[in-house]
Amino acid sequence: MQKIAVLAGDGIGQEVMPEGLRVLRAVAERFGLPLRFDEFDFANCRYYEQHGQMMPSDWKDQIGGHDAIFYGAVGWPATVPDHVSLWGSLLQFRREFDQYVNLRPARLMPGVRSPLAGRQPGDIDMWIVRENTEGEYSSVGGRMYPGTEREIVLQETVMSRVGVDRVLRFAFELAASRPRARLTSATKSNGIAITMPYWDERVEAMAAQFPQVTVDKFHIDILCAHFVQRPQHFDVVVASNLFGDILSDLGPACTGTIAIAPSANLNPTRQWPSLFEPVHGSAPDIAGKGIANPIGQIWSGAMMLDFLGHRTAHDAIMAAIEAVLADPAAPKTRDLGGRASCTELGQAIAEAA
Amino acid sequence: MQKIAVLAGDGIGQEVMPEGLRVLRAVAERFGLPLRFDEFDFANCRYYEQHGQMMPSDWKDQIGGHDAIFYGAVGWPATVPDHVSLWGSLLQFRREFDQYVNLRPARLMPGVRSPLAGRQPGDIDMWIVRENTEGEYSSVGGRMYPGTEREIVLQETVMSRVGVDRVLRFAFELAASRPRARLTSATKSNGIAITMPYWDERVEAMAAQFPQVTVDKFHIDILCAHFVQRPQHFDVVVASNLFGDILSDLGPACTGTIAIAPSANLNPTRQWPSLFEPVHGSAPDIAGKGIANPIGQIWSGAMMLDFLGHRTAHDAIMAAIEAVLADPAAPKTRDLGGRASCTELGQAIAEAA
Ligand SMILES: CC(C)[C@H](C(=O)O)[C@@H](O)C(=O)O
Ligand SMILES: CC(C)[C@H](C(=O)O)[C@@H](O)C(=O)O
Repeated sequence: MQKIAVLAGDGIGQEVMPEGLRVLRAVAERFGLPLRFDEFDFANCRYYEQHGQMMPSDWKDQIGGHDAIFYGAVGWPATVPDHVSLWGSLLQFRREFDQYVNLRPARLMPGVRSPLAGRQPGDIDMWIVRENTEGEYSSVGGRMYPGTEREIVLQETVMSRVGVDRVLRFAFELAASRPRARLTSATKSNGIAITMPYWDERVEAMAAQFPQVTVDKFHIDILCAHFVQRPQHFDVVVASNLFGDILSDLGPACTGTIAIAPSANLNPTRQWPSLFEPVHGSAPDIAGKGIANPIGQIWSGAMMLDFLGHRTAHDAIMAAIEAVLADPAAPKTRDLGGRASCTELGQAIAEAA
Repeated sequence: MQKIAVLAGDGIGQEVMPEGLRVLRAVAERFGLPLRFDEFDFANCRYYEQHGQMMPSDWKDQIGGHDAIFYGAVGWPATVPDHVSLWGSLLQFRREFDQYVNLRPARLMPGVRSPLAGRQPGDIDMWIVRENTEGEYSSVGGRMYPGTEREIVLQETVMSRVGVDRVLRFAFELAASRPRARLTSATKSNGIAITMPYWDERVEAMAAQFPQVTVDKFHIDILCAHFVQRPQHFDVVVASNLFGDILSDLGPACTGTIAIAPSANLNPTRQWPSLFEPVHGSAPDIAGKGIANPIGQIWSGAMMLDFLGHRTAHDAIMAAIEAVLADPAAPKTRDLGGRASCTELGQAIAEAA
């Protein structure tokens, strides 16, 4: 039995999670997968309002033994500041469960309008591999002379050899497994002249171990420009925590799929559970209306099945998503130009899967 | 007499600078502007090869008394690592001359193909105001246990009350002067949870002083997505050093004008010279071929004239650039879909100005 901890989170997380589960249950039945879903009502802002913290103190005992975590979206800034809710949940999972790879696709899908001119499905198909535990997202720093004109605020970026090398190795292995075998590194060593030249050095050292991979690098500013101007160039893109965060929103934006994009927070050693969540947030502006697009959640579920060894079930979900997107008669949520509810779109995919 | 220090720099800097000067001289003559151009052969990589440093030790005496610096592009990574050439020239000017505002437009221009679908000239017209002296571009940090498995590398992001407030004030004043009076702040306070919440706080404090300005903020990841998906929303965007760097390449990329985009590194107190340079770099791949687009350099010259009080001459250059871009029969460089040389395009603009 594989145990999945389910955390719906806040806002539209509550709406898209049931659809994610609907599709997972459908394929679990169809393929006879040994999955058990355990729902937990923490790591959300309602929990914080009641308890003054995002999670119970024994949260790690409660979910640390699961095979995977299926997360919705977290954040409700009207009652809890984002940095409090995020550092008390998602960012803590990433660190405590050492989910050092954040893996996100950017792919032009049939039936989805891209904001870029003249691009067709197939033109853009890349993986963004983001470092997920250190770098610019650090908890080291503070404030001096607070409240005065002399106030200064410091925050340390921290890169470790271990932390950089392990995510690079993952990215190079992924690139080596793909037909084009191209890896692009995001850097900013011309301006961020201490940590980023180190990143470049480690990329070079790793590249020497993967002669079959074609490697290039771009500074993050021009790399963002290239995502818009020649996205077809990219195959696997590896980046630091912050740069990966930026690129993995920009990539899906270029393919028109930000509401659809999934992400996997992976601990490839499997010592701790990996976590699967949509790229989108809790979207307070549309929460409660039943109009959220559940595909990001569903696709994240497909990535989870793949990670748990169920490749066929993964493929069935992906085929169902593509079929529903491509079919003009199938239900579509508003962001896709239709009038269907979150549930109707989820049902359509569950039936097709 | 207003004295302008001219530094052509490396690569295509050597090619676009003569065209920038050609246009400036043409309007100086037409409008009788009291300009003197002093050319200096340092702050480039050839100088470094000869002297082991990017500039003579008395560089500040040589150009610190000028009214403005007109810079081409710097960097020749084949012989000098980028962080060495940049920190020894451009980034040093920004700091030593306290050019705390980096101002860059992103504007859809007539005759320029945007990579975004269905956008017309007029749809996109924003200013990006970037903090230019501190933040993520810090020189504080270092390496521990170098060369071992335990290696760690640290780099401090530094924000000061003075540094943040002065660039915010500039941005709010600019927004207040524009018809839409909208200011967007780039943040990442959910993840970068020490410095960026401070940035947000200072934005809120400044907003209280500008009730006529409509303020919003987005995390940098989704903000990049919005640049692609709804660029028409933005009017003035204010950002930290790194985020401003990214947005001021992405904005011009969305308008198709990366080879055209200008930038102003401003010291609004005028205690030290301000610096004007194209957004593009030295482009080693096309250097020496005479095919570079000189409009970024020419437009930077127009911004310089505006800053020096010559608004009419600025307007004449801008009208000339737009007329040449819009005229299908006018010479165009390859990046604009034509076959003209850098010089031919420069001459056409000089004649129209
Ligand atoms: C060359 C580089 C250091 C510089 C920067 O990052 O500031 C450039 O990208 C710019 O935007 O002027
Ligand atoms: C919510 C936020 C802290 C998070 C991040 O920056 O990592 C999100 O943007 C993401 O990409 O998962």
